[in-house]
Amino acid sequence: MADTAWPGCAKSLKGVVLDMCGVLYDSGEADGVAIPGSIEAVKKLKASDLQLRFCTNETQATREKFVAKLQRLGFDISVSEVFSPAPAAVAVLKERGLRPHLLVYDGVLPEFDSVDKTSPNCVVIGDAAENFSYQNVNEAFRVLIGLEKPVLFSLGQGRYYKETDGLKLDVGVYMKALEYACDLEAEVIGKPSPMFFHSVLSDMALQPHEALMIGDDLVNDVGGAQRCGMKGVQVRTGKYRPSDERHPTVTADGTVDNLAQAVDMILNQRGH
Amino acid sequence: MADTAWPGCAKSLKGVVLDMCGVLYDSGEADGVAIPGSIEAVKKLKASDLQLRFCTNETQATREKFVAKLQRLGFDISVSEVFSPAPAAVAVLKERGLRPHLLVYDGVLPEFDSVDKTSPNCVVIGDAAENFSYQNVNEAFRVLIGLEKPVLFSLGQGRYYKETDGLKLDVGVYMKALEYACDLEAEVIGKPSPMFFHSVLSDMALQPHEALMIGDDLVNDVGGAQRCGMKGVQVRTGKYRPSDERHPTVTADGTVDNLAQAVDMILNQRGH
Repeated sequence: MADTAWPGCAKSLKGVVLDMCGVLYDSGEADGVAIPGSIEAVKKLKASDLQLRFCTNETQATREKFVAKLQRLGFDISVSEVFSPAPAAVAVLKERGLRPHLLVYDGVLPEFDSVDKTSPNCVVIGDAAENFSYQNVNEAFRVLIGLEKPVLFSLGQGRYYKETDGLKLDVGVYMKALEYACDLEAEVIGKPSPMFFHSVLSDMALQPHEALMIGDDLVNDVGGAQRCGMKGVQVRTGKYRPSDERHPTVTADGTVDNLAQAVDMILNQRGH
Repeated sequence: MADTAWPGCAKSLKGVVLDMCGVLYDSGEADGVAIPGSIEAVKKLKASDLQLRFCTNETQATREKFVAKLQRLGFDISVSEVFSPAPAAVAVLKERGLRPHLLVYDGVLPEFDSVDKTSPNCVVIGDAAENFSYQNVNEAFRVLIGLEKPVLFSLGQGRYYKETDGLKLDVGVYMKALEYACDLEAEVIGKPSPMFFHSVLSDMALQPHEALMIGDDLVNDVGGAQRCGMKGVQVRTGKYRPSDERHPTVTADGTVDNLAQAVDMILNQRGH
């Protein structure tokens, strides 16, 4: 059964899903910088017989602007290949006839242009940084507490992330705040939500065991994918920390130095 | 054993502890307004052989300013009779040699004048309203995450409160936010913390069963006092809601219309 373990499982793969920040590029000044070898690795995957999708919890900009940034960095990537929480939220809102009060980055607002936002009957929060003022958080709270059946969606559940000027509180922190204030449980949209991974699999028309997730976040990328029945490989770039390899509950199917190494191992196994 | 139940237990009482907002007065424009009968009720208790203390989670102003407001409303009350979280926090900080980073109302800052705040090794948060900006919460987070052994004190753990312009998020919400961000558990100072009630009992040199708490908050006043072995009576003023009388986990020893009625029942039992 060696073929079921990494990298042997690569033989039976039909699709690969890539996390973006920390796998393709590191964020920072302006557009950030591509991680060495990752542009070429994406090219190789596209030239192979594997399907390829990108899966990110990025909610600071629209997919269009985000993809344009990646293209400027040199990546061969298009909007239709990218899965991010905001469009997933829009689909859920429309399906359930919900009208959101939004507390998100200004840059991601256009994603919600097609959604009716009059007399809100739910709240959607994403990473909002400075928009998480007391007044804005209080306003979101008042909408929720005024609803007979309050519904809170959170685009991801991160604790914090790193920017050039230091650590910054992420959306999960404000999700917990509003959960406590209103005595409710938020619905998370994005990794590690199973629904999010399933939407990517569904787009590729693949079963979970036919797909591999490659990410730098052990819990949200690797653990989330594994809970759906996918394989999960961690790269030692981005937010990877050596302690991840001794994590109490999540064990990656494989750990590799970077995306380039992962792709070479996959394609070698497949005899390319 | 009828004497152990309310109001029979009043015979063996040696001290009474009163919550303030919602029991003595209702907050609102300017100083707020005294609840009918409460000024006279405090007078009667002071004229009796019972000890009397006041116990509040108020953290918007110093005790001096807070007590001055009560005096303007007509209450016979002095600073030494009032227990509030900020002075209790100062005692804890000094005892444990901790230097706080403070995220509180500007009005309560003078309470911490005597505390060393250089190179902080803990964080103290209180209700801070507009001071809970993203930048300020993020700053508190960065102090905590930078400590080898992060310690977070929360002055109370309320979810929200009501002001004339509507509901406002209370300190407990930001406590939960920072707990999640830093993966820690805050130490709550104020009601319903047992330590807080014990400090009041200790000041009166009384055993718990010799003291009665009267408050409008079923969980924080009544439940907190009961968990310490005190009796707890709820008044139907302030934040009282009829559903409190069917609460799943906390049952008051007695429920009365207001403080005046409670005091008359106590003093009648004692044969005044």
